[in-house]
Amino acid sequence: MVPLKGDERLDYLLAEDLRIIQSPSVFSFSMDAVLLAKFAYVPIQKGNIIDLCSGNGVIPLFLSTRTKGNITGVEIQERLFDMAVRSIEYNGLEEKIHMINGDIKEMPQKVGFGKFDVVTCNPPYFPTPSIEEINENEHLAYARHEILCTLEDAIRASSQLVKQGGKVAFVHRPGRLLDIITLMRQYRLEPKRIQFVYPKEGKEANTLLIEGIKDGNPDVKILQPLIVYNEENEYTPVIKKILYGEE
Amino acid sequence: MVPLKGDERLDYLLAEDLRIIQSPSVFSFSMDAVLLAKFAYVPIQKGNIIDLCSGNGVIPLFLSTRTKGNITGVEIQERLFDMAVRSIEYNGLEEKIHMINGDIKEMPQKVGFGKFDVVTCNPPYFPTPSIEEINENEHLAYARHEILCTLEDAIRASSQLVKQGGKVAFVHRPGRLLDIITLMRQYRLEPKRIQFVYPKEGKEANTLLIEGIKDGNPDVKILQPLIVYNEENEYTPVIKKILYGEE
Repeated sequence: MVPLKGDERLDYLLAEDLRIIQSPSVFSFSMDAVLLAKFAYVPIQKGNIIDLCSGNGVIPLFLSTRTKGNITGVEIQERLFDMAVRSIEYNGLEEKIHMINGDIKEMPQKVGFGKFDVVTCNPPYFPTPSIEEINENEHLAYARHEILCTLEDAIRASSQLVKQGGKVAFVHRPGRLLDIITLMRQYRLEPKRIQFVYPKEGKEANTLLIEGIKDGNPDVKILQPLIVYNEENEYTPVIKKILYGEE
Repeated sequence: MVPLKGDERLDYLLAEDLRIIQSPSVFSFSMDAVLLAKFAYVPIQKGNIIDLCSGNGVIPLFLSTRTKGNITGVEIQERLFDMAVRSIEYNGLEEKIHMINGDIKEMPQKVGFGKFDVVTCNPPYFPTPSIEEINENEHLAYARHEILCTLEDAIRASSQLVKQGGKVAFVHRPGRLLDIITLMRQYRLEPKRIQFVYPKEGKEANTLLIEGIKDGNPDVKILQPLIVYNEENEYTPVIKKILYGEE
């Protein structure tokens, strides 16, 4: 058995035959991470994939079910990195997923420029909080706020890590759409696929999935809308399938 | 009675108590124009509104039901301008809608810089066609292709015509999203509201509605998805309401 620390739980990754260590006070993965792991292109037979801002390793764990390639996860917080490593061990995936405890800004120097077929990243969404907010819960603040990693850091590092023609996928808030597009083009990641997630059919989008190709040709597609809840506040069939693997 | 020319018909503007002159060989309005006329913000009690690339005047006619303000329509093709003028006469709207037969690129010099509260524009969508295609049907080619008016022409003219804090709304293809955003920001029109139109729930978007504010603060909203057809290929309730005014 892998030891659990503090208020950690061993949760199921629902549609997958995997377990993951989570903690309400330290880090629990969000639906956004699951959606990104399903949205991102991955090579099936082989290839090198890197996930930045990995948290407790949820995206590498999900991606491991979709590819025979090698997956690297990068997490700057030692506490979260440690959760990820133990989850990978628990699932017997040490051969396939390799976690690095480090700063994404230093990864190109550390693991090589243009070495990856695919980069995924679920970066912190919110501007830097006040000192009080940081002090309240350091782990959650680092995961949610642009303290250790700005959007530009994430996009720059992704562009440096991916090979020419390789793919980079992000999940973020729709309010940052223009910033993301502007930064991706600045760092030669041409946006090619965008998907918006709407909480309900009559509501504004609250999540944005976007994939670009390094030095790709300009031509973007807006994929089918993902609507999370129906009128009765139940998950829609498409979301059930993503979360539980059922129709 | 307003005289009809050639194969022109006097069609109903469905949800409105209006008629419009159309011609299958010269120009018929598209659903995109209707969606833009519903999407665009308009001041209710007063104000100056200008519609660029007006065609047979469908957008000015629609907007006239939503505002007591003055509406100017600009159309470069004399044949289409003439249809618009006759439709406006037929509906008795000469006091409210004023059509100009001219080039949008010359409008700021002609009608004034920064004089309008709202600009709407349904520009030609497609790159310049071959000479053969132009010769085949000049009217349709000018309306559909960027021959007399490029996307940049439309965005530059809109930005020059609108006042500080005024709103500009476009309809276009989602494949041009990145170009539109880049050009709008270049001409100080900050995108604030975007809506995607999907032909069916499981399909990619085929139409993009976007509204910007001159010198607005960066913060964009992705409005509820507009889905045109249900599984049985019937219009969805939201589209029926837009087209026919019924639920």
